[in-house]
Amino acid sequence: MSDIAIGVDVGGTKALALMVARDGRVLGEMQSQTPHDEGFGAGEATTKVLVEQIFELCDRQSLDPAHVPIGVGLPGMMRRDGHLAFAPNLQTASGADLGTQLGDALGNASVFCENDANCAALAEHEWGAGRGIRDFVMVTLGTGIGGGVVADGELVRGRSGFAGEIGHMVVDARGAECPCGGQGCWERYASGGGLHRMTREAALEGRLATLVERRGGDAKSVRAEDVTAAAAEGLDEAVTLMREVGWWLALGLSNLAAILDCGHFVIGGGLSSASDLVLPAAREFLAELVEGYEARPAITVTTSMFGPRSGAMGATLVAFAGA
Amino acid sequence: MSDIAIGVDVGGTKALALMVARDGRVLGEMQSQTPHDEGFGAGEATTKVLVEQIFELCDRQSLDPAHVPIGVGLPGMMRRDGHLAFAPNLQTASGADLGTQLGDALGNASVFCENDANCAALAEHEWGAGRGIRDFVMVTLGTGIGGGVVADGELVRGRSGFAGEIGHMVVDARGAECPCGGQGCWERYASGGGLHRMTREAALEGRLATLVERRGGDAKSVRAEDVTAAAAEGLDEAVTLMREVGWWLALGLSNLAAILDCGHFVIGGGLSSASDLVLPAAREFLAELVEGYEARPAITVTTSMFGPRSGAMGATLVAFAGA
Repeated sequence: MSDIAIGVDVGGTKALALMVARDGRVLGEMQSQTPHDEGFGAGEATTKVLVEQIFELCDRQSLDPAHVPIGVGLPGMMRRDGHLAFAPNLQTASGADLGTQLGDALGNASVFCENDANCAALAEHEWGAGRGIRDFVMVTLGTGIGGGVVADGELVRGRSGFAGEIGHMVVDARGAECPCGGQGCWERYASGGGLHRMTREAALEGRLATLVERRGGDAKSVRAEDVTAAAAEGLDEAVTLMREVGWWLALGLSNLAAILDCGHFVIGGGLSSASDLVLPAAREFLAELVEGYEARPAITVTTSMFGPRSGAMGATLVAFAGA
Repeated sequence: MSDIAIGVDVGGTKALALMVARDGRVLGEMQSQTPHDEGFGAGEATTKVLVEQIFELCDRQSLDPAHVPIGVGLPGMMRRDGHLAFAPNLQTASGADLGTQLGDALGNASVFCENDANCAALAEHEWGAGRGIRDFVMVTLGTGIGGGVVADGELVRGRSGFAGEIGHMVVDARGAECPCGGQGCWERYASGGGLHRMTREAALEGRLATLVERRGGDAKSVRAEDVTAAAAEGLDEAVTLMREVGWWLALGLSNLAAILDCGHFVIGGGLSSASDLVLPAAREFLAELVEGYEARPAITVTTSMFGPRSGAMGATLVAFAGA
């Protein structure tokens, strides 16, 4: 049983590797750009970067990269056997068996893969904002929405390991189109990408007059960042739009509460940095959106304890559990 | 350990009691009207009927009603401690501790309560259409939609025991109003009640011209039963409406597949008798609605093995497990 593991969270833009002790102390950290070179076989470019990170972190602590358990969190539908079955945001690795590729490259028999949001859920459950809570959902608000479902203390993986694709729950039938091919998916409303889309729509519809004016009258150039900044300053039209995002967030959380009776949500991912602008509204709307709200104990919504590190932290737990 | 238990499924209109052996054989059956008298304390009228049923079933087999384990399936949010917290379709028992009331009346210390759709899921998992399947969802299509979620072989109960309220998952934000107080709940589209609502809407909008004509031109008098009967005969306008119900059914199933990665659905409840008219369409639409459908093993949808008996059968499993 190893006391130290490495976890790597491979996102669409960057790969964060952490060396972590079993008690949660972070012993080393390294961040790289996620490669999207298409000249290689599926997953090869990704594997190369991960090998570099793992060698570097091991080198700093004089550890043998062949004998440290490795966990990898990946953005997509991870099969239980380690194949990345479907990864719209990491297409050069889609279909690859990254676990085997990485294990072969390192001569390491202890490489374990898991969906990135599932990793984040495990980290928050073990050490963070979900500690001691048996029924909660980790919700990562990034470009899309990822999820990790913990029921009765256990991560729900589903038949093939694909559980937690909560961002593609349809909440608005025949609504906004989604890159997944569907329409009205939750992540088109309550994620960073959703804010971006709704910003553009609101600007074109004249609901962001001040922000459009600040951009010299060009509605198309108003960005999501303009909205979050202006909302932080208290500009009404921006506050209103952020409350709308909060309403959509609450709608999806209410669905999850109805299906799973989870009493707690941990919000992570990039948009969670704007949490002060979104979560108070989401909490308020939960009361009117959750079925039988009065008959339930309070439902709590908090931000993740590890922020952008949740995924890599959790990947080490996958490594510890597997090794 | 008892070899015989009694399970009662208390619905909004009738209460079905079964005496069942541990291997699933049904030894006795009795059905009564569910009382809705308001002159009594919460749950008292219900308890009285259940006591009669249990005495009758025990009498037939010369068993002592004080010593047969009893399971009760109830239509609403059942707390883990046996309180019926919220039951819109059984309001005279809402808030009651039926387990204790029934136990006191029978002098029986082995009375256990559970949500009715959860009971159905347990029965189908143990003996029926979900046997040997570790990740599936039981979907009961009645006036509303009930659900029982089985993940990794275990029933998901959630924090308070309220999990599986899948009918109140919102699939059409700001859509049709629901008696729960919400809008756009799945059960407003894909249940018996949903078919009723959509029939009326379609009739008024002129999409059921033949059926309206058959009712002497009175659009408001066209009923859901007219649509299912005409669809069975192949009348285009009725087939089209049933396909629409199938589309909505598939939409909710797709959401559950995304969240839980369940590979199987068992469809029960009253509307499942019209399953030949709805399930083929639902299966067809799943292919376009499930995220990453091609990357997943096939998702199967079947009808329940025990039909209207699933809930009472499963209630006996709750009794066996508790006793």
